[in-house]
Amino acid sequence: MGFLAAGIGAGIIAVGAGIGIGMIGKGATESIARQPEAAGDIRGAMLLTAVFIEGVALIGAIVCLLLALGIGQ
Amino acid sequence: MGFLAAGIGAGIIAVGAGIGIGMIGKGATESIARQPEAAGDIRGAMLLTAVFIEGVALIGAIVCLLLALGIGQ
Amino acid sequence: MGFLAAGIGAGIIAVGAGIGIGMIGKGATESIARQPEAAGDIRGAMLLTAVFIEGVALIGAIVCLLLALGIGQ
Amino acid sequence: MGFLAAGIGAGIIAVGAGIGIGMIGKGATESIARQPEAAGDIRGAMLLTAVFIEGVALIGAIVCLLLALGIGQ
Amino acid sequence: MGFLAAGIGAGIIAVGAGIGIGMIGKGATESIARQPEAAGDIRGAMLLTAVFIEGVALIGAIVCLLLALGIGQ
Amino acid sequence: MGFLAAGIGAGIIAVGAGIGIGMIGKGATESIARQPEAAGDIRGAMLLTAVFIEGVALIGAIVCLLLALGIGQ
Amino acid sequence: MGFLAAGIGAGIIAVGAGIGIGMIGKGATESIARQPEAAGDIRGAMLLTAVFIEGVALIGAIVCLLLALGIGQ
Amino acid sequence: MGFLAAGIGAGIIAVGAGIGIGMIGKGATESIARQPEAAGDIRGAMLLTAVFIEGVALIGAIVCLLLALGIGQ
Amino acid sequence: MGFLAAGIGAGIIAVGAGIGIGMIGKGATESIARQPEAAGDIRGAMLLTAVFIEGVALIGAIVCLLLALGIGQ
Amino acid sequence: MGFLAAGIGAGIIAVGAGIGIGMIGKGATESIARQPEAAGDIRGAMLLTAVFIEGVALIGAIVCLLLALGIGQ
Amino acid sequence: MGFLAAGIGAGIIAVGAGIGIGMIGKGATESIARQPEAAGDIRGAMLLTAVFIEGVALIGAIVCLLLALGIGQ
Amino acid sequence: MGFLAAGIGAGIIAVGAGIGIGMIGKGATESIARQPEAAGDIRGAMLLTAVFIEGVALIGAIVCLLLALGIGQ
Amino acid sequence: MGFLAAGIGAGIIAVGAGIGIGMIGKGATESIARQPEAAGDIRGAMLLTAVFIEGVALIGAIVCLLLALGIGQ
Amino acid sequence: MGFLAAGIGAGIIAVGAGIGIGMIGKGATESIARQPEAAGDIRGAMLLTAVFIEGVALIGAIVCLLLALGIGQ
Repeated sequence: MGFLAAGIGAGIIAVGAGIGIGMIGKGATESIARQPEAAGDIRGAMLLTAVFIEGVALIGAIVCLLLALGIGQ
Repeated sequence: MGFLAAGIGAGIIAVGAGIGIGMIGKGATESIARQPEAAGDIRGAMLLTAVFIEGVALIGAIVCLLLALGIGQ
Repeated sequence: MGFLAAGIGAGIIAVGAGIGIGMIGKGATESIARQPEAAGDIRGAMLLTAVFIEGVALIGAIVCLLLALGIGQ
Repeated sequence: MGFLAAGIGAGIIAVGAGIGIGMIGKGATESIARQPEAAGDIRGAMLLTAVFIEGVALIGAIVCLLLALGIGQ
Repeated sequence: MGFLAAGIGAGIIAVGAGIGIGMIGKGATESIARQPEAAGDIRGAMLLTAVFIEGVALIGAIVCLLLALGIGQ
Repeated sequence: MGFLAAGIGAGIIAVGAGIGIGMIGKGATESIARQPEAAGDIRGAMLLTAVFIEGVALIGAIVCLLLALGIGQ
Repeated sequence: MGFLAAGIGAGIIAVGAGIGIGMIGKGATESIARQPEAAGDIRGAMLLTAVFIEGVALIGAIVCLLLALGIGQ
Repeated sequence: MGFLAAGIGAGIIAVGAGIGIGMIGKGATESIARQPEAAGDIRGAMLLTAVFIEGVALIGAIVCLLLALGIGQ
Repeated sequence: MGFLAAGIGAGIIAVGAGIGIGMIGKGATESIARQPEAAGDIRGAMLLTAVFIEGVALIGAIVCLLLALGIGQ
Repeated sequence: MGFLAAGIGAGIIAVGAGIGIGMIGKGATESIARQPEAAGDIRGAMLLTAVFIEGVALIGAIVCLLLALGIGQ
Repeated sequence: MGFLAAGIGAGIIAVGAGIGIGMIGKGATESIARQPEAAGDIRGAMLLTAVFIEGVALIGAIVCLLLALGIGQ
Repeated sequence: MGFLAAGIGAGIIAVGAGIGIGMIGKGATESIARQPEAAGDIRGAMLLTAVFIEGVALIGAIVCLLLALGIGQ
Repeated sequence: MGFLAAGIGAGIIAVGAGIGIGMIGKGATESIARQPEAAGDIRGAMLLTAVFIEGVALIGAIVCLLLALGIGQ
Repeated sequence: MGFLAAGIGAGIIAVGAGIGIGMIGKGATESIARQPEAAGDIRGAMLLTAVFIEGVALIGAIVCLLLALGIGQ
């Protein structure tokens, strides 16, 4: 069961990170195109929220690696 | 069953955090581009809501780590 | 069965809180950008609805922790 | 079966409350930004509908707690 | 089977009520912002349709409580 | 099987009624905001279609109650 | 199997009728708000199409009642 | 198996007819509101396409009734 | 297995025909409202595409009837 | 298994043909309404793409008929 | 298993081809209506992309026919 | 298992290629209609991205053919 | 299990690559139509992101080929 | 179980990376078309967010390769 969870879980994590950071990235590129002189503030908000998502995704990735290597079973 | 839940649950949590913080991040970057002088207020609302989501996601992540390490079984 | 429910349930709760608070956060940042002088009223409505969602999510998180720790089984 | 239902049910309830109150919160913040002088009426409608949803969600949460604690089985 | 149905059913009911009353609440807040002097008529239509949904949801909630408490089995 | 069907069926009925009457309620509140002097005609159409949906939902709710109480099995 | 089908089928029928008549009702209320003097024609088209859907939904509801009462098994 | 198919099939048919005729009805009411003097042509196209869908739905409903009554098994 | 397929298949066919002809019917009514003098050409294109869908749906309906009546098993 | 596949496959084929030709039919009717003097070119493109879809759908329908009649088993 | 795959696979292929070529066909008819004098270039791009999809769909259809006729089992 | 995978996999590949190349084809036809004199550049970008998708789809198709013919089992 | 995974996985990879590169291709063709003189920069960004997706898809395709040929089992 | 997870997981990872980087790529190409002189800043934000997604996807891909090669089982 752990192996099944590792693979599928890793996939769903990538979907989550992809949708989330994708929305942020799309919003950021369009916002810089609209207001190029606010690029610093926009890049700051972009990184701040992307890192929140990345953090959750990495915890999930660690869980999946633990399961894939059979640690804790 | 716990191992299966740990992996898949971690994935779904990442999806939840991704969609939620992604929407906030997209809204924030677009809002700063629209009204650069309100960047402080916007960043405040952004952080406040992102932390609400991050909190729920971290509780979920702790549940998943507990399950992955086989604690409480 | 309780362990399976704990992990998957925690994930779905994060999705619920993510979508809900994400929509509120997006709406709030865009609204502040549109009407910066109404930021107080907007932040009030934002917190009020976000707390409604957070409350339901926390009850669900408690249910999941109970299940993950095997209490009540 | 009751434990499985408690966890997954709690998750789906959070999704329901999240989507519903999220839509209301988004509508309310955007409406206040559009017509700040009608903030009282808007906040009234916002609370009224949010409480309808919260009520149904709490009944569901009680059902889930009953199941998680094994009462009535 | 009844316990499984009670939890998951309660969750889906909350989704139904959430989506429905959420759409009404969003429409109502935006409508009041657009035409503040028609707030009475709008609040009337809002309550009328929200109560229709609440009625169906409560019948469903009663069914779920019956099942969770094991009545009629 | 009847118990499972009763709970899940009641949930799906609430989703159906929620989506349907939600769309009508949203349309009605926005329409009254647009044309307040036609509120009577709009409320008429709103009630007429909402009752169609409510009728089907109530028949379904009766089926679910029959099943939850174990009548006809 | 018949009991399971009765409950879930009744739920899906309500979804179908809800989405369909909901779209019609939304279209009708918005159309009356746009062109109040054509309310008669619009109400005619609204009823005609709603009755088509209601007809199919009622046939399905009858099938579900037959199954819930165990007739024909 | 036939009973299961009858109930669920009847539900899905109602969804199909609901979505289809709902889209037509919404389009028709909005079109009459836009061009009231073309109401005849619009009502013709509306009926023609609605009857196509109704025909397929009725054939399916007959299949479901056959299955619910256990004919041909 | 054939009976299960007959019911569910008939339902999915109705969904397919409903979505397809519904989109065509919506497009046609809106197009006639936009350009009433081109009603002939529009009705021609409407019928032509609707018949393509109806043809595929009828073949599927025949397959379902064959299965429901147990022919070829 | 072949009978199950025949019914459900026929349904999914109808969905595919319905969505595809429905989109084409909607585009074509709206395009003729926009540019009535280009009706010939539009009808040509409409038929060409519809026939591509119809071809794939018919091959699938033949596969389903083969399975429903038990040929090749 | 091969028979099940043949039917369901043929259905999903039709969905893929339907969605894809449908989007192209819709885009092409609308584009010709917008710029009738570029009909040649548009028809070229339409055919080129439609043939790419048709190619993949035909390979899949051949796989399904192989399975339906029991070749290679 | 290989036969099941071959049929269903071939179907999902066609969906992937259909959605992807369909979006490109729609974008390309609309872009040529907007800027006919840039047709060369647009056709270049269209082919380049379509070929990327076609490449992945063909590798998948080869995997399905291998499975359908029972090679490597 | 490996064979099942190979076929279905290859299909899902094609969906991923199709959606991703399709969105990029659509954006690129529309962007070139809007700003033909920036075609070089746009083509650069298009290739860069498409190659990121292609890379992940190819790794996945290699995994599927390994499974289809039974290597590492 | 590991083999099943490897194939399906690899597919879902490709979907995640595809959706995410696809949204970024679309946003970037459209943004460069809108503001060609900000191409540097846009390309920077594009790469930064794409690499975040690519990182999560590659970790997932490594998990899948581990599972496909049977390491750690």
